[in-house]
Amino acid sequence: MAAPQSPVRDKQSHGNFNVDYVIAYDIPAKESAEAEATFTQLIEALSAVGFATEVRPGRTASSLLVFVKLASPSLLKSQIYRARVQDWLFGVRPSAPAPSDSNNTSPDNKTDAINRYFAEEEPVTEAERLRLAYELITRPRNEGGAGITPKRGQWRFVASIFPLHDRAFNRAWISAWSRKYYLDETDIGSIRDRFGERVAFYFAFLQSYFLFLVFPAALGFAAWLLLGPFSWVYAVVNCLWAVVFFEHWKMKEVDLAVQWGVRGVGRIQLPRSQFKFEREGIDSVTGEVVKVYSPFKRLARQLLQGPFALACVVVLGGLIVSCFSIEIFINEVYNGPFKQYLAFLPTILLTILNPTLTTLLTRLAQNLTEFENYRTHDAHQASFVQKIFVINFITSYLPIFLTAFIYVPFGKILVPYLDVFQLTVQRFTAEGQPLPTKEWEINPNRLTKQVIYLTVTAQVVNLATEFIVPYAKRKIFRTVERVQSELSEKNAAAAAAGGKATTNQPRRPDEPEEAEFLERAREEAELDEYDVTIDYREMVVQFGYLSLFSVVWPLTACSFLVNNWVEARSDAMKIATNCQRPIPWRADSIGPWLDALGFLSWLGSLTSAALVFLFKNGTAFPSGSPWDIRAWALLLAVLFAEHLYLLVQLVVRGVVRKLDSPGLQKERSERYAIRKRLLEKMVEWDVSGAETAGPGVSGGEKITRAVLEEEARRLSVVGEGRPEQL
Amino acid sequence: MAAPQSPVRDKQSHGNFNVDYVIAYDIPAKESAEAEATFTQLIEALSAVGFATEVRPGRTASSLLVFVKLASPSLLKSQIYRARVQDWLFGVRPSAPAPSDSNNTSPDNKTDAINRYFAEEEPVTEAERLRLAYELITRPRNEGGAGITPKRGQWRFVASIFPLHDRAFNRAWISAWSRKYYLDETDIGSIRDRFGERVAFYFAFLQSYFLFLVFPAALGFAAWLLLGPFSWVYAVVNCLWAVVFFEHWKMKEVDLAVQWGVRGVGRIQLPRSQFKFEREGIDSVTGEVVKVYSPFKRLARQLLQGPFALACVVVLGGLIVSCFSIEIFINEVYNGPFKQYLAFLPTILLTILNPTLTTLLTRLAQNLTEFENYRTHDAHQASFVQKIFVINFITSYLPIFLTAFIYVPFGKILVPYLDVFQLTVQRFTAEGQPLPTKEWEINPNRLTKQVIYLTVTAQVVNLATEFIVPYAKRKIFRTVERVQSELSEKNAAAAAAGGKATTNQPRRPDEPEEAEFLERAREEAELDEYDVTIDYREMVVQFGYLSLFSVVWPLTACSFLVNNWVEARSDAMKIATNCQRPIPWRADSIGPWLDALGFLSWLGSLTSAALVFLFKNGTAFPSGSPWDIRAWALLLAVLFAEHLYLLVQLVVRGVVRKLDSPGLQKERSERYAIRKRLLEKMVEWDVSGAETAGPGVSGGEKITRAVLEEEARRLSVVGEGRPEQL
Repeated sequence: MAAPQSPVRDKQSHGNFNVDYVIAYDIPAKESAEAEATFTQLIEALSAVGFATEVRPGRTASSLLVFVKLASPSLLKSQIYRARVQDWLFGVRPSAPAPSDSNNTSPDNKTDAINRYFAEEEPVTEAERLRLAYELITRPRNEGGAGITPKRGQWRFVASIFPLHDRAFNRAWISAWSRKYYLDETDIGSIRDRFGERVAFYFAFLQSYFLFLVFPAALGFAAWLLLGPFSWVYAVVNCLWAVVFFEHWKMKEVDLAVQWGVRGVGRIQLPRSQFKFEREGIDSVTGEVVKVYSPFKRLARQLLQGPFALACVVVLGGLIVSCFSIEIFINEVYNGPFKQYLAFLPTILLTILNPTLTTLLTRLAQNLTEFENYRTHDAHQASFVQKIFVINFITSYLPIFLTAFIYVPFGKILVPYLDVFQLTVQRFTAEGQPLPTKEWEINPNRLTKQVIYLTVTAQVVNLATEFIVPYAKRKIFRTVERVQSELSEKNAAAAAAGGKATTNQPRRPDEPEEAEFLERAREEAELDEYDVTIDYREMVVQFGYLSLFSVVWPLTACSFLVNNWVEARSDAMKIATNCQRPIPWRADSIGPWLDALGFLSWLGSLTSAALVFLFKNGTAFPSGSPWDIRAWALLLAVLFAEHLYLLVQLVVRGVVRKLDSPGLQKERSERYAIRKRLLEKMVEWDVSGAETAGPGVSGGEKITRAVLEEEARRLSVVGEGRPEQL
Repeated sequence: MAAPQSPVRDKQSHGNFNVDYVIAYDIPAKESAEAEATFTQLIEALSAVGFATEVRPGRTASSLLVFVKLASPSLLKSQIYRARVQDWLFGVRPSAPAPSDSNNTSPDNKTDAINRYFAEEEPVTEAERLRLAYELITRPRNEGGAGITPKRGQWRFVASIFPLHDRAFNRAWISAWSRKYYLDETDIGSIRDRFGERVAFYFAFLQSYFLFLVFPAALGFAAWLLLGPFSWVYAVVNCLWAVVFFEHWKMKEVDLAVQWGVRGVGRIQLPRSQFKFEREGIDSVTGEVVKVYSPFKRLARQLLQGPFALACVVVLGGLIVSCFSIEIFINEVYNGPFKQYLAFLPTILLTILNPTLTTLLTRLAQNLTEFENYRTHDAHQASFVQKIFVINFITSYLPIFLTAFIYVPFGKILVPYLDVFQLTVQRFTAEGQPLPTKEWEINPNRLTKQVIYLTVTAQVVNLATEFIVPYAKRKIFRTVERVQSELSEKNAAAAAAGGKATTNQPRRPDEPEEAEFLERAREEAELDEYDVTIDYREMVVQFGYLSLFSVVWPLTACSFLVNNWVEARSDAMKIATNCQRPIPWRADSIGPWLDALGFLSWLGSLTSAALVFLFKNGTAFPSGSPWDIRAWALLLAVLFAEHLYLLVQLVVRGVVRKLDSPGLQKERSERYAIRKRLLEKMVEWDVSGAETAGPGVSGGEKITRAVLEEEARRLSVVGEGRPEQL
């Protein structure tokens, strides 16, 4: 039952009794018979693929925790070897996994070589072990796994499958990170070894972005001091920075993937068990049987993204526009009674309706993505990310777009239409009296205030809620649960008192050496799963503010710099304390978010140019009429900025490509070295092939030499043309 | 002296006495001593690397022809093997070159296996043989070649090194092509086997383009019948077509490269012998010593491309604008004497000055590229192509841009400034008389006429000159040469008559069996080298007309369809009869022209939108004032068209990527198959590694099983949580 590492040290350092996974199992009172039958199947399925299991009660009487570990180290080795071979078959690793002296054929040496291979040459990281154990649990039975799919089908009573946190590591991690300014490669590397490449990529991106923020922060501070807002110098340099950052990250991403040995891992795509196939086909590359779903049907379903985006625009856009209008009306036009209370109305509406609608639309996005029926997790995730990007784009940026491009230029024209509200309000006031309104002026500070709110206040609020909300949720949840279980115990007691036989005994106390451990496991069973998508989304939205609107308030990047230092630590805290330990998936990039970054960076060139053009001269639109704006000049400015952007991108891309990423270089030189080594084994053939290509041919060569000499003699004796002059 | 193929058949079918290369050597009268000394060195250098040589007189008394062939088939095999191993090291070919049963160790079998390998498994094509022979001749001595660099340094008397045409093949080729409508893959394949991938890629591109032209030709014809010029429907569909063609070709290119086994061949970069290095460094991939030139210095030199482009614009643009102005003045304003003669003035000026200036600028581009000092041929060529693209862009498209965007909208305003010419003209006419001018009107047909001229007349003229000019040049050159050699013979005779001793004897007549062959070789020595760049340029410029201006005259594509059918045949004719046989270089794409195509396709979206917007309503600018154009609407139209274009490109690219090119698929499955095969050899280790990892560990596994069963029993007996209900 020993893990490949020293078992005694492990037990003490992890304090997890070498448990690989915990399976939380619910036995709802209504379906207890079925749930219990399935539970036996669960234990059998796990044993069948080589897991040792231990069962302990969960927090409530209706839940169980199954502690799972890989029973034998040789099974682990065989799984790891299998996975590494697959990596190599798909070109993820340059060389086949094998001990360096695999040619040695004596059996004793072989065992030594294998042990040395796993102990020294390519040791197994915790992430690799956990990933393979998880795959073994969830892989379909006909592919050699236990086929357990949490919350679905036969296994709908399996609430979650999660690895246990390594408390000692987490403590060391958080305390180390909170004491250093700068996270280096070893910090990210240790994340990778514990939580896998998918999480490590997030922190690597965050760190890279944090470092790059130093430049726009300094630039922004200087611009704020010297140039003021809406400076075209700041706008140009900021866009340039965005291009450089984007291209740099693309290179860095490849570098990291090579360094971590996961480049091309996207090709080994995790099939989704929810995928519904139409027929089976042969994979032209591997020759294996694959499940196929008609791409045309999928395309037809993908076209629903159009209506979906439109729905988002209408629903969220409608909400935002309405609240915006009410706000302007109340703040800047209305001057009647209850103004101080009414001022909160739009905020209250937004706070209530926005999350509700967003949640609804996100669920719609989920269902839509499900409906699109992707074969692999990656494709599914990419499509889902696209959709939530649309939602987030609207909720995050539309308010600023409204202020900058509708309210300020067209306010004077549009505000009269707010009469609708005036009529509504009049119903609540005395009929005869005219509604008291104040003289209305476009508020030129509104845009700046809004940007400051979104880039400072909202970030802080966001950071806080990331902690408080899950904590509060957990507290409430536990209270409810306690009350419920107390009630059910009372009922049981009443039933027992009533003479009805029940097997429901009060839970036995945990054995003392396990008690602390079990308490931890029960707590962790109730935590949320960690979803890296949410963290990426936050950073990408932030990058959008910087790229699109920071020209309004150049200190934006300073605020983000501070925020992101905290963000990295708070995300670490979140993983360590607020979430279940993530399953250490691999990844070779930040995936679909890269496109989102590129899009925002490009859009930034347009909005920055438009903002500078519209607001440059301090008081925008002195006459208050939008027709003062020379539309062709605005368009020309935007057009020019965009093409400058595209040109700079082309140049930067060219330069970055010439720089040659060290990762790619490493990869190439590895492949070259491997081939060279293989070549050395072939040299024998080479020589024989080249030098002595059969006796007859070799004789032919001698004859040819003779002919050659004959020719030369003839040339010097007889002479043709002029050489005889010599 | 036998080539690897059957020698007898070869001799008859090629009629070239198995000669691989002919080296034309000049012995100028002034430097004859030096030239003759070098000639001996030449023969020695060739013999040293294994070539058999024969010398025969050239056409003139001062020239020699050296016939060169690889002396031994085993040398050829070793060279080919070396090259194939290099391909494999650089990842061009998926598998190492070796006979399929290379494990067999008996020496006799080995010889057989090797012979079979070269005869059946991977036979040597003529192109491969010739390429390697050429590399052997030109590679530096320290890398095992003869180090002969035509026209440069020590070898400045070497006029050219060329392979001899295979007349029989050429005849069959031309006659086959002239009798079929459609060239298929075998046709392109046979080009590849003879002339190498670089030439084959040109014909593949031409053919692919020709096929794709059918669509815009049909569309254009329909648009011409139904919609008339400046139809936005035609413009949109045409742009869409350009996107699809571009993306399709990018995929096709990869396909072909994989099919021909040259994908990634650009990585094995041919070093330029003219490259001047600053220091030697270590290649991080191969660990070999490489010559390094500071990239920053090169970048500084590359910045000269800016001034160069500016010079092109000023010089060529100035010429075109001047001729344009003169033309308009004479045709449409001037009405005085000699009008019918003066009308030819701008054409004459253009015909004389344009080629002269273009040649000058091309030479400047050559020198500039030389100055940029690239290490490899590919980089050099790419940089040179960039420069000539600028030149060609100006000369080809500027006239139409002038008409469409300057002359028509601003003509009324600008023409008064043509007074300058009026003053000039007045000097030639009677002083007192006012210059007769006619009432001036903007000629709305000018644009259409110009487009028709450039897309029909100019193409035909171009096609004709491609034949006539080199033919005429050759005729004139030969006449001059004959006169010269007659003169020198007379001189020699006179000198001999004067009693002065001379070794200069009249040329001996050729031996009868060689006479016809030598005559051919002498003719070919005088032909130009084939430069595929010129042909690419022609096609890319043509594509530009279609993409940028075909909305003016929708029949453009019909004209090009006919033209390109002839073009493919005439280019074949050109290679077969007007040029030396090209050295069969490899290539894995059409190289830098791809970028040019992409640029023109993108620019097409802008110009088409602008043209439709400006000229749609039949009579453009009825009032004659450009201020009627709503600039913002024009800009919006262009902006919209461009973004539509970029969006469509994104979508098409996504779809094409999803289609998965069959070539890439083939490549992946090949690599997979190779790895799978290697894996089978390793299986022995796998099994032992996974199943019996040492006796101790194996024992450990048994114990674990026991524990597992024990666990299960305990579970069913004692029971924890609820399962005891079962």
